[in-house]
Amino acid sequence: MRLVMFKHAHKEGIAAESNDGELRGFTSDNDGYPGDIDTLVQTSADLQTVGRALLDGERFDREEITFLPVVRRPRKILCVGLNYVDHSLEAGFTPPDYPTIFGRFATTLIGHNQPIVRPPVSIELDYEGEVAAIIGKGGRNIPMDEALSHVAGYSIFNDASIRDYQWKSPQWTMGKNFDATGALGPVMVTADELPAGCAGLKLETRLNGKTVQSASVDEMIFSIAQQIVIMSEVMTLQPGDLIATGTPAGVGMAREPKLWMKAGDVVEVELEGVGVLRNPVIDGA
Amino acid sequence: MRLVMFKHAHKEGIAAESNDGELRGFTSDNDGYPGDIDTLVQTSADLQTVGRALLDGERFDREEITFLPVVRRPRKILCVGLNYVDHSLEAGFTPPDYPTIFGRFATTLIGHNQPIVRPPVSIELDYEGEVAAIIGKGGRNIPMDEALSHVAGYSIFNDASIRDYQWKSPQWTMGKNFDATGALGPVMVTADELPAGCAGLKLETRLNGKTVQSASVDEMIFSIAQQIVIMSEVMTLQPGDLIATGTPAGVGMAREPKLWMKAGDVVEVELEGVGVLRNPVIDGA
Repeated sequence: MRLVMFKHAHKEGIAAESNDGELRGFTSDNDGYPGDIDTLVQTSADLQTVGRALLDGERFDREEITFLPVVRRPRKILCVGLNYVDHSLEAGFTPPDYPTIFGRFATTLIGHNQPIVRPPVSIELDYEGEVAAIIGKGGRNIPMDEALSHVAGYSIFNDASIRDYQWKSPQWTMGKNFDATGALGPVMVTADELPAGCAGLKLETRLNGKTVQSASVDEMIFSIAQQIVIMSEVMTLQPGDLIATGTPAGVGMAREPKLWMKAGDVVEVELEGVGVLRNPVIDGA
Repeated sequence: MRLVMFKHAHKEGIAAESNDGELRGFTSDNDGYPGDIDTLVQTSADLQTVGRALLDGERFDREEITFLPVVRRPRKILCVGLNYVDHSLEAGFTPPDYPTIFGRFATTLIGHNQPIVRPPVSIELDYEGEVAAIIGKGGRNIPMDEALSHVAGYSIFNDASIRDYQWKSPQWTMGKNFDATGALGPVMVTADELPAGCAGLKLETRLNGKTVQSASVDEMIFSIAQQIVIMSEVMTLQPGDLIATGTPAGVGMAREPKLWMKAGDVVEVELEGVGVLRNPVIDGA
């Protein structure tokens, strides 16, 4: 099932995407409205049943809706630092034995087509295309062979970063938490419709149409299953928690000259089998 | 006003502490129950009015209640890394020009008297006594002269840390997010009852009765007002957000031999004018 959250005529809505690409569902003023994805996941709703009912709903034109982040109230947003073997460094690369994990908060989240905001205090706005995993079933000390069964679905995340704020102190928190820098969407695809842990899927980031990141999910150092095992050793994962699973090589800060995003740019992250997350960039006031 | 969250006979309750130290209030089955502190703060309730009504409520014996964290659903928990000028290093210390900030999630929170859990995977459980500030009024780009007006109240936090997990990667997130390591309470004191920004208050941590940390809030490098200014430059602060404002010198990892907390220990953090947050330590399964 492919689920989308949106606004239409000032009402919140949820839709399922049909096989022919149509969005059908309900806005919150309709008796058929089942709640948003956060609520559905947190109440362990059966997303197949919900999705089938949505497909009998009203048709929404994607040009006439405002996409929302597929989840908006995750109790945790856990992001994994550089987690792909860079092809160019592959020969000499020593994978770390533990992932680098940092937190985001929901105030950073924006949906598909919504603008990523470059704050007036910095020009160092960078892109990071990522696979997003949304936890369906919570748990602690989740074993490896059950890890992927805890994922409700996958989406696309742009972990846009303000680099100079990321390096202002030893902890990256501030550079990763500017309002309106965490793009999420357009769709959550339930895990049953994708290869286990997104294995083999191609992930690509394009800035103004030019490919700037391109990798296979197989190049992750810590797989999505391993991330769930490692995170749940420490903390109880909860339904609706969002994991941003790391970005491949090619970010703007690693280029010479540096490639920063600026007002008027358009950044797209494409995940095979999921779709394209597209965001314009604007200057904040 | 001094507000406490608790459980009594399996029901959630809220109480105000009277001048003579009695707890009076309501459990959730009573019509007088106004909601928990998270809800009150997030809905901008007048805490003085709420508190006065609670003082007309039922009396609860503090030996018969289970204290809960004063807030349990903060949308952000922002922690400030070492933020006190260590007396012994004062002469040669160069204060950083930007605070080190990391995130916790609410799955770490426990109340007064509840056990801090040492996980089976580590012995390196350390204490960090801190002032907790709870945001009342949200905002972005909050100016310095308004910063403290955004605080609903203050409490006490023990930012207990699993040091080997904190150092497993460059980001401290995992060592700071083990379940049941973030003690918060016992009381939230509204800001009007304390000096502005807790200025001049004494903060002390005791392990098994022995003083291990002792400082004045005036020794903070970044004051609570400055923290609010700096954080809100990056992100929108929201009502109920929790700021753990940093710990003074004296933590166990800085001692020789190292001083780790272990099962059977009792750790207390005392903040002048607020009270004592006391937690036993147990081994996790």
